[in-house]
Amino acid sequence: MKRKLKAGVIGLGRAGFMHLRNISSMTEIEIVAVADMMVDKLSEELDQLNITKDARYSDYKDLLKQDDVEAVFIFTSTNTHEEIVLEAAKHKKHIMCEKPLSMSLDEKDTINVLNVVKENGVKLQMAFNRRFDPQFRKTYEMVREGKIGDPQIVKITSRDPDLLPHDLILRIGTLIFDFTMHDFDMARYMMGSEVVEVYAKGNTLIDPTLKNINDVDTLVIILQFANGGYAIIDNSRKAVYGYDQRVEVFGSKGMLKAENYSASTVEYYNENAVELAKPLPMFQVRYTDAYKNEVKMFANSILNDAPIVCVGLDALKAQRIGIAAQKSLETGLPVKIDIVEEI
Amino acid sequence: MKRKLKAGVIGLGRAGFMHLRNISSMTEIEIVAVADMMVDKLSEELDQLNITKDARYSDYKDLLKQDDVEAVFIFTSTNTHEEIVLEAAKHKKHIMCEKPLSMSLDEKDTINVLNVVKENGVKLQMAFNRRFDPQFRKTYEMVREGKIGDPQIVKITSRDPDLLPHDLILRIGTLIFDFTMHDFDMARYMMGSEVVEVYAKGNTLIDPTLKNINDVDTLVIILQFANGGYAIIDNSRKAVYGYDQRVEVFGSKGMLKAENYSASTVEYYNENAVELAKPLPMFQVRYTDAYKNEVKMFANSILNDAPIVCVGLDALKAQRIGIAAQKSLETGLPVKIDIVEEI
Amino acid sequence: MKRKLKAGVIGLGRAGFMHLRNISSMTEIEIVAVADMMVDKLSEELDQLNITKDARYSDYKDLLKQDDVEAVFIFTSTNTHEEIVLEAAKHKKHIMCEKPLSMSLDEKDTINVLNVVKENGVKLQMAFNRRFDPQFRKTYEMVREGKIGDPQIVKITSRDPDLLPHDLILRIGTLIFDFTMHDFDMARYMMGSEVVEVYAKGNTLIDPTLKNINDVDTLVIILQFANGGYAIIDNSRKAVYGYDQRVEVFGSKGMLKAENYSASTVEYYNENAVELAKPLPMFQVRYTDAYKNEVKMFANSILNDAPIVCVGLDALKAQRIGIAAQKSLETGLPVKIDIVEEI
Amino acid sequence: MKRKLKAGVIGLGRAGFMHLRNISSMTEIEIVAVADMMVDKLSEELDQLNITKDARYSDYKDLLKQDDVEAVFIFTSTNTHEEIVLEAAKHKKHIMCEKPLSMSLDEKDTINVLNVVKENGVKLQMAFNRRFDPQFRKTYEMVREGKIGDPQIVKITSRDPDLLPHDLILRIGTLIFDFTMHDFDMARYMMGSEVVEVYAKGNTLIDPTLKNINDVDTLVIILQFANGGYAIIDNSRKAVYGYDQRVEVFGSKGMLKAENYSASTVEYYNENAVELAKPLPMFQVRYTDAYKNEVKMFANSILNDAPIVCVGLDALKAQRIGIAAQKSLETGLPVKIDIVEEI
Repeated sequence: MKRKLKAGVIGLGRAGFMHLRNISSMTEIEIVAVADMMVDKLSEELDQLNITKDARYSDYKDLLKQDDVEAVFIFTSTNTHEEIVLEAAKHKKHIMCEKPLSMSLDEKDTINVLNVVKENGVKLQMAFNRRFDPQFRKTYEMVREGKIGDPQIVKITSRDPDLLPHDLILRIGTLIFDFTMHDFDMARYMMGSEVVEVYAKGNTLIDPTLKNINDVDTLVIILQFANGGYAIIDNSRKAVYGYDQRVEVFGSKGMLKAENYSASTVEYYNENAVELAKPLPMFQVRYTDAYKNEVKMFANSILNDAPIVCVGLDALKAQRIGIAAQKSLETGLPVKIDIVEEI
Repeated sequence: MKRKLKAGVIGLGRAGFMHLRNISSMTEIEIVAVADMMVDKLSEELDQLNITKDARYSDYKDLLKQDDVEAVFIFTSTNTHEEIVLEAAKHKKHIMCEKPLSMSLDEKDTINVLNVVKENGVKLQMAFNRRFDPQFRKTYEMVREGKIGDPQIVKITSRDPDLLPHDLILRIGTLIFDFTMHDFDMARYMMGSEVVEVYAKGNTLIDPTLKNINDVDTLVIILQFANGGYAIIDNSRKAVYGYDQRVEVFGSKGMLKAENYSASTVEYYNENAVELAKPLPMFQVRYTDAYKNEVKMFANSILNDAPIVCVGLDALKAQRIGIAAQKSLETGLPVKIDIVEEI
Repeated sequence: MKRKLKAGVIGLGRAGFMHLRNISSMTEIEIVAVADMMVDKLSEELDQLNITKDARYSDYKDLLKQDDVEAVFIFTSTNTHEEIVLEAAKHKKHIMCEKPLSMSLDEKDTINVLNVVKENGVKLQMAFNRRFDPQFRKTYEMVREGKIGDPQIVKITSRDPDLLPHDLILRIGTLIFDFTMHDFDMARYMMGSEVVEVYAKGNTLIDPTLKNINDVDTLVIILQFANGGYAIIDNSRKAVYGYDQRVEVFGSKGMLKAENYSASTVEYYNENAVELAKPLPMFQVRYTDAYKNEVKMFANSILNDAPIVCVGLDALKAQRIGIAAQKSLETGLPVKIDIVEEI
Repeated sequence: MKRKLKAGVIGLGRAGFMHLRNISSMTEIEIVAVADMMVDKLSEELDQLNITKDARYSDYKDLLKQDDVEAVFIFTSTNTHEEIVLEAAKHKKHIMCEKPLSMSLDEKDTINVLNVVKENGVKLQMAFNRRFDPQFRKTYEMVREGKIGDPQIVKITSRDPDLLPHDLILRIGTLIFDFTMHDFDMARYMMGSEVVEVYAKGNTLIDPTLKNINDVDTLVIILQFANGGYAIIDNSRKAVYGYDQRVEVFGSKGMLKAENYSASTVEYYNENAVELAKPLPMFQVRYTDAYKNEVKMFANSILNDAPIVCVGLDALKAQRIGIAAQKSLETGLPVKIDIVEEI
């Protein structure tokens, strides 16, 4: 019988609980502990998942003290990521952490965290879930196989289905730091090159009060890469037709397009039009497979000592692009980026 | 300067006039005469197309006497085809005739016509327009190139956008003889084999009064071919979403599908659905290119003595399948077909 | 905490084990016993799924004696279905059984089984999985809502990816009884009417030796319904491009098409063509959701005393169509069907 | 009989002759004169189109003196447009001129030309052909009808199938002035607002020697509009899969996408993939309808005194965006644009 990874899950909010349910049906992983400030309110659900009562903590620090926990999954809100990663690393736990590591405009803390992770010799996987999506992964692989020759233009459309409450934004980050961050990572992933300059324009065309929290709802961005190519990104906080997630990579020998998924292949022909199903409505549904794959690949990295697919340095690089984009948004000028050295 | 084919056009009804306009802008053909019983009512339109007054006839027989007419296009209603083809052949004119040659349940007259055509050494092209449609032609060529291996199943969906007046049906033929006739030809064309048995079921689900003229509005048919393969055909007189014209050919190495055209590539994403344009609404629009191509290929066959693409024998074969289908409809039993010998 | 259905699983072959794994991660069901003639060879896998050793039987009859088993799932090969259903009914177990109930050309045994099920007051769900597929279910619901008006033509294309070994065919039934059976059920489901006549033509275009076991690899069928409408079905045992599963329903107000799923939305534009992913390759992948849904809906029917979606009578009706189709195939003539009375 | 517009055609190069052939089959227009420096070499072709010998000029100025010429079509190369428009206006001829009016970095001459046109009271239509393309026109109309609410992001992908010779580029303009010019016009047309700032990045990823003539082959651009919205444009000189022409308009109530046309609807399913036809290969084929429509709408504007769809001011506005884009490309900074006043 194959060895299972003994893991703890920290953060059982909506996303965290979805992950917990996924993980609990995986044959690679055994959940030996969970932690959440509100863990007491979840007793019935945790019973159903056979999480024993003595393995439930309201303070994540207690979970880190449990000896048989080899690895932790961190699904708390962004503003707590750095602290928890730091503690987990010190307790010699391997770590999978929701992206981004930080929503700060200063990289210093991030670099410190990555150094601590390195010093303690634990593995850290950043959960940029889109890298683990089957379509985007397939696209990536075809680019790397040379199917389109040299990549020249990456085109990313990423639009959320609806506005978020302002207080939530304050906890998880503005559009750039919570949402576009994925596009920065995706652009690097597809182009296979590093970003050297960013130009970003944004506006509040949907909810003007977003200005009060220094945020926007509409964003267009040009990234210049070291290889001479470009990425263009467009974001909106509100696409009435669903969660719009498309990536296109154009190169010297062709083009790859990863189109939206829809819930159904049913086509309805009537007197007025041919009606198809809309794109999937939200991230939980769109990235179901991605969320499972990122967990499985993390478990595999540890169980079989395989390389981590998306490392801490990737998070730092995305953060650095985000900081430059924010500066460009504020100054109205393109902003150059120093390529991050190896950590 | 290249020689032009000097041609006469017989029949200037709706379809005939559409053809006349097409032909008059072609560089391969010079229209030297037209004939229609109502030709006097068309003087303004014929002026615009530069048809000289002395080249306009109300009786097609007078047109046939005009010496410089090398070839005639026959666009009159089906019940006149045999007579006009016969006369034209006797006057040594090459002939392109709208399909079918006949809507009769007896082949004798058709065979007689084809013999007269042969004896007079003129070329006869039957205008089974779908053979000249770029999509179906492309599909045909790919089948013949072996792209799908041995063809095993041909699937044809052919649905008209709306009911026709009963008096028109009496002139142009019932569903089988006016409409399905095209599908019989298309099935043979794609399969590359001859039909040996027909089973047809039909009903009046849309207009029950069609029973009064011995017609149906809904039809499903199985054809068995000499090579062991099958065609399945479904017809309806009324598809509210447009003129539905699809062909699929399945074989040992793959499948080819010729899908409907729509008027537009515009996709409209809204709160409810993704809306696309419907299929093209009617034959005049759907087969614009086919109607031009059949004329050009006919002109080419004569000017360059190239083989005719769709000959009289093809019309006889389709008629024979139609007669068997009608008999199957009436008896409720499959009907065997003798393969037509060469004429 | 919600009550779980306590169930036993009979038959742990490839399909059975797939189901077992699905069910074991469902919150609605607790697996309290399994039975398979080869159960000893599965000990490691069953350990992983936490099936206790004393709940594993090599003889299904022993499982039926276990008191806390409320319901059984029967995933054995078709030739054993009737016997096991009979026994399970006598032991007052609710039953979900893989379709079809029988591959016999005689209905008597089937009718007997259904009567025993009725007498013992247990619920029986037939696992015609396609009814539980989200696309086909969506299509069905839209038809019933009147989106296309009165349904007139149902068109089903159902092609398997490859030939099966002859000995397997002998156990699970010929093309008509194993494969087309699904299409018969689907046609009735979509049309909402009963079949009154069948015409079937079949041939061995792929594997001529199938004749030795009285089977075919290529099949085309016309069904006539009591409401005057038709279904046309085409089957092949070998579609090189994957598992081809399409349903189209045409009616007085429009058309619905449930197209194939493919594994990917990635489009590859190159010098020669635009390449898309093929349809999903086989039933296990194509009907993943259907297999889960059928189990969940069965559990729901029992836990909440809701109606069964696909009952024993549906299996009998499909069997009766199959028997008629077989007769048509052999005689070359259409075969009438008496509509099955209520049991 | 309806009055025809009596027109002269100036410039019979490849594009000019295509237009001449189109126009000569239109019932709205009578071609009474043509002019081209090489007119003598075209005698056979002009004979075929029934252009009388005394209506053929080698110097366009002689054509302008012909009294019955009401309007002229100018299809010469870009560097001659301003001069010929100026002369034609002075001779009181209505004018349709290929875009752009000028490839100069200085607007003064353009403004002078537009003033002369105005003073002479003639109509001037600029042939931004894409506005007359049925798909883009349909998209435009749906946007104006409010189908997507307030437009927020316009996304244009415009890629040529292959590199052009450098000497041709010198005559017709660099990528920005010959090609992207269409995208600038399309962006304004779709957004319904004026551009206030441009940011452009370009590179020579395909043909590095383009640097020698101060040109690029890869271009990404962000336009900011007065209404707060954005356009993002990406261009390449070489898309191996064809002429890629797509427009997407995103707004508060939905999205419209005008996708590429392909030559065929045939789908080829084989063991490896589903293969579709590539996008149409080049502008002559892609914009066949657009080229005809722009001529017909110009004729209609004059014959029925209807408003001109695309006026001289539109050309000036596109030129001004082009000048700013060029400046941005050279400085690496965004460049603000003064909205052009009415002329």
